[in-house]
Amino acid sequence: MNHFARRMSSLQASEIREILKLTRRPEVISFAGGLPAPELFPSDELRAVADQVLRHEPGLALQYSPTEGDPLLRHALARHMNRRLGCRVSEDEILITTGSQQGLDLTGKVFLDEGDVVLCESPTYIGAIQAFTAYGPRFVEVPTDDEGMLIPELVRLLSSHRRIRLAYVVPDFQNPTGRSWSSSRRMAFMQLMWRHGIPVVEDCPYGQVAFDGPAHRPLKALDRCDQLLFLGTFSKILCPGLRIGWVAGPRHTLERYVLAKQGSDLHTSSLDQRLVARFLERGRLGANLSAICDTYRERRDAMLGALDATMPPGVRWTRPGGGLFVWLELPPGADARDLLLRCLEHDVAFVPGGSFFPNGGHDNTLRLNFSNMPCERIVEGVRRISAVLHESLTELAHGSAAALA
Amino acid sequence: MNHFARRMSSLQASEIREILKLTRRPEVISFAGGLPAPELFPSDELRAVADQVLRHEPGLALQYSPTEGDPLLRHALARHMNRRLGCRVSEDEILITTGSQQGLDLTGKVFLDEGDVVLCESPTYIGAIQAFTAYGPRFVEVPTDDEGMLIPELVRLLSSHRRIRLAYVVPDFQNPTGRSWSSSRRMAFMQLMWRHGIPVVEDCPYGQVAFDGPAHRPLKALDRCDQLLFLGTFSKILCPGLRIGWVAGPRHTLERYVLAKQGSDLHTSSLDQRLVARFLERGRLGANLSAICDTYRERRDAMLGALDATMPPGVRWTRPGGGLFVWLELPPGADARDLLLRCLEHDVAFVPGGSFFPNGGHDNTLRLNFSNMPCERIVEGVRRISAVLHESLTELAHGSAAALA
Repeated sequence: MNHFARRMSSLQASEIREILKLTRRPEVISFAGGLPAPELFPSDELRAVADQVLRHEPGLALQYSPTEGDPLLRHALARHMNRRLGCRVSEDEILITTGSQQGLDLTGKVFLDEGDVVLCESPTYIGAIQAFTAYGPRFVEVPTDDEGMLIPELVRLLSSHRRIRLAYVVPDFQNPTGRSWSSSRRMAFMQLMWRHGIPVVEDCPYGQVAFDGPAHRPLKALDRCDQLLFLGTFSKILCPGLRIGWVAGPRHTLERYVLAKQGSDLHTSSLDQRLVARFLERGRLGANLSAICDTYRERRDAMLGALDATMPPGVRWTRPGGGLFVWLELPPGADARDLLLRCLEHDVAFVPGGSFFPNGGHDNTLRLNFSNMPCERIVEGVRRISAVLHESLTELAHGSAAALA
Repeated sequence: MNHFARRMSSLQASEIREILKLTRRPEVISFAGGLPAPELFPSDELRAVADQVLRHEPGLALQYSPTEGDPLLRHALARHMNRRLGCRVSEDEILITTGSQQGLDLTGKVFLDEGDVVLCESPTYIGAIQAFTAYGPRFVEVPTDDEGMLIPELVRLLSSHRRIRLAYVVPDFQNPTGRSWSSSRRMAFMQLMWRHGIPVVEDCPYGQVAFDGPAHRPLKALDRCDQLLFLGTFSKILCPGLRIGWVAGPRHTLERYVLAKQGSDLHTSSLDQRLVARFLERGRLGANLSAICDTYRERRDAMLGALDATMPPGVRWTRPGGGLFVWLELPPGADARDLLLRCLEHDVAFVPGGSFFPNGGHDNTLRLNFSNMPCERIVEGVRRISAVLHESLTELAHGSAAALA
């Protein structure tokens, strides 16, 4: 039998992906994925752009290209970040990645030795846990509430841990909770990071998917010490299939990312980069984003309405102002994995929340996605979960009563 | 200042990529890159395919897709390997990667702990050295000649090294030497690997770019112990810009690659995978490959003719039956890096061979690429290198004579 590297024993199949396999039957109402709505992909426009690119610049779009990325796209992204996100970055502070998942992997490769500490929110994005785990770090989870990391807890953890190599955060409409950090928490967090000299990785896939007025500026716009790496992606604002993400960060650090990326995949698809660059040139990203926000806002409202109307008492959930997810907390003692198995019998699915905590626990949490189905189906799906949950919680209460008797 | 992972201190900028930056002036005749000829990219056909895909299946081509790869492409590749390469693989033994460079990175991630040994040819592919180096292995170089690894040396090295985790080989028209292994060496090598239970990674980007009759079957077609991982790519037989490669290997091992890839980039571009799958369906890969071989054959002949006609005595070179490269060995004492600096003054460039030896040395070697320019330019470029080399070797001889006097 083959001998595998030690890291492979800690890399587990993503629970979400395994569950998704169970939910492929068309009759299942699945809140489990995190898929954008495909009916909003601007496919006609992309088809026109593909025709243009393959007609006029095939020798460029089909050839090897620089590891750093297509100069046209880097230029467009610097502009985008400066105009729309209030940042100040130049195009040579941008590296194009194969989705922002690669930004996470490169972060692990560049920063992490075995045993190093990554500070993160509790809960945090599962894809980041998976990417970093390959490099053997310990995760220190900072407790959070509706406004972001709890600052006193953060201060305590900063003083009690050595080898903190980076902080990984998703301050806008986070996956899995849908929560956004308040302005004061953002500033307090950054000041602590500056003081301790800890590089910050800001993952911002949802920042522009904002339903109730403009979103916060990213942490990147606050950065004064040039130690912040911003991860962006087109997955949620254009389409995920092209795998175009980017890292914006200080040159000195980005050089390391470029070296790491050379070994990882040489460069990101030349064609896909050029398609996105030419799409941006047409100036249609804003209109596309508005359509996405309008549709997702309705779906979020449908989901929150259905939760309000049907959930049993003792269940709490977030009220996200953007993004793709709502986060539920069941009463203590309830187990979302058990609930999922029962729900699958009623053809409805979600992701148990435990996987979003790198150090485990929190089995009474779960994540619901609302971006990828019509409102009627959302309402019906929530109704089914609520019905199953009513039953489970009644049993749980009786069980507890019986145990006490 | 940021603290980077230890691995970053051994990751160096690829010398080739740095040299390429110096050779972008249009007046430079550069044999340094490894670029396919862009005039042979089937861009009209790909444009038609892109139109078809984005018209009829945009929801699939632009959406997230399975880590394992597009089922249509995996199916087509299993067929391709079985029909054209004499293998026996099924589609679930195929993982699509973001170029075969990612296949190399995943190999490192799956197999290598720090200090593990990788057996490789001497010289070997620089991209593999770079990918594996991120995982901290030692390289044990097996001496080679025109028929492949020297078997007695291999036997000796196998008995004198512990922790050999894998063997990495490029048996067909290797980068950098252009050499191919003989049938008897292939069999002797595989028998030793079976006996020692060492997984083999066969990197085969050039196997089908064969000029003088059909190429050998890949080692994969010989494999009896299900411990071989075959890395394929469309970079040299279609175009490199789409970054579509694949790994064919036993399910048990491929499962680990899938886990590693989830963390690396979730999946390869859905659009690019579907483009290649639909391109293959049209049955035009064979015609495209013939055109590539015809053009490269002429260019190789031009290069070998010019070398024969102009090189000073004492210089030796390979006579590749395929691929993209010719390998030169200068007389002992000559330094290809010095030669390059002089050649750049005459607007001609190549890659010094030292970078292809993971443990250094061999400064008297160099690599010439012949795929990416017309024959006249090849002849003129070789003439210039020869002229500079005549001069250098004369100086070298005088210097040695002076030193002896």
